[in-house]
Amino acid sequence: MPRQLYELCGADERQVFSPYCWRVRMALRHKGLDFESVPWHFRDKEKLAFSGQPLADAKVPVLVDTDGSVVYDSLAILRHLERTYPERPLIGDALADARLDFICQWVDRQLNMPVFRMIVLDIFNALDAADQQAFRESRERRLGMTLEQFQDTAAGLAQLDQVLAPLRALLQHAPFVDGQAPAAGDYVVFGVFAWARVVSARPLLAADDPLQAWLERMLGLSDGFARQVPAAAEY
Amino acid sequence: MPRQLYELCGADERQVFSPYCWRVRMALRHKGLDFESVPWHFRDKEKLAFSGQPLADAKVPVLVDTDGSVVYDSLAILRHLERTYPERPLIGDALADARLDFICQWVDRQLNMPVFRMIVLDIFNALDAADQQAFRESRERRLGMTLEQFQDTAAGLAQLDQVLAPLRALLQHAPFVDGQAPAAGDYVVFGVFAWARVVSARPLLAADDPLQAWLERMLGLSDGFARQVPAAAEY
Repeated sequence: MPRQLYELCGADERQVFSPYCWRVRMALRHKGLDFESVPWHFRDKEKLAFSGQPLADAKVPVLVDTDGSVVYDSLAILRHLERTYPERPLIGDALADARLDFICQWVDRQLNMPVFRMIVLDIFNALDAADQQAFRESRERRLGMTLEQFQDTAAGLAQLDQVLAPLRALLQHAPFVDGQAPAAGDYVVFGVFAWARVVSARPLLAADDPLQAWLERMLGLSDGFARQVPAAAEY
Repeated sequence: MPRQLYELCGADERQVFSPYCWRVRMALRHKGLDFESVPWHFRDKEKLAFSGQPLADAKVPVLVDTDGSVVYDSLAILRHLERTYPERPLIGDALADARLDFICQWVDRQLNMPVFRMIVLDIFNALDAADQQAFRESRERRLGMTLEQFQDTAAGLAQLDQVLAPLRALLQHAPFVDGQAPAAGDYVVFGVFAWARVVSARPLLAADDPLQAWLERMLGLSDGFARQVPAAAEY
């Protein structure tokens, strides 16, 4: 059977934008594995029942591999790929795996939030009407305010600038987060930039930001694989 | 020849407190290697001339290994130890090494600063008179304000609480930063806590902070090796 990746999409189904799905897309390309993208919408919780997740909180990405095995959770999928297709290391040894976990936590708890503040209304606008309602309800409950109150581009940019300091320092002496070649650490960080790129025409980085060169390298991988999904700025 | 580690000390030479020296102390214990601590003061730049560093900015830690090889810079020393004594992995494979670099950058650019704001006057008070002058001049130039203006315990604590979020999340499902057992990632983070512990009686963590259990585990390693250096609170 073909390998399938269930991915969040906007009203336009070419718009795959979830940062967690992007981790997996990039990891699949890293391993040289083809896949079929299955568009999924926030409201379609029951369509993920086969994955075995608690339905009320069911999420993508979900991978259905060629042997029929089903894996959910982006980091679990990366680990599945590393075990099943050991060529071209993506995660590395046990210490590399633990430190990848740290990078994931840093991305989820420090990097995501300022970007979310900058693009929350762009995400809302990218969704179709039924998903807009589900998105607004769940996010406003979590944030304790309206999406419009939460969106604050200037505050997000200022906070992002501070949060990116470790990454800027790292990329001053190495071309990739994971050293001389990209691997899972790069894909986890890139997911956040891909998320913003697909839904928002507002750039996250100044043109002369040292991170811009890394971002261009990431967009150029595998003959520009990531650029096959159009950027919001290109619409 | 005996293995020697040049380490920054306070007026009381038992008070070794540099976070960078602590990375190396812990790494040496990790590898089961004995060493002789050579106390060093900020003002003694020329005593590090043998290490080959630019003198104006000469720093500890400097390691002189049993074969006479001399290494400076904490991460370079960790890599030297891993190459020279490959048993009991400390760094791991190439991907693990790159991600350790990320953790170091995160520690240097996000974790250090709020702690420094909380303990800068404690550091000053731990030094002898000649070092106090050197410390005040260099730090006030760098900070653009007096040490007294920079010290802000409440602001430091609030900022620290935010910065620690990824670490708290990580340590909720693993006993150590580096997974099931401690390694270089733990020692790099622990350095900051050891720094504060030795010079300042003010705790960085609330008693019920989930990080407290990790800190106790770190202090207990190798039969309480780190506790051999007295805490400021114990004076």
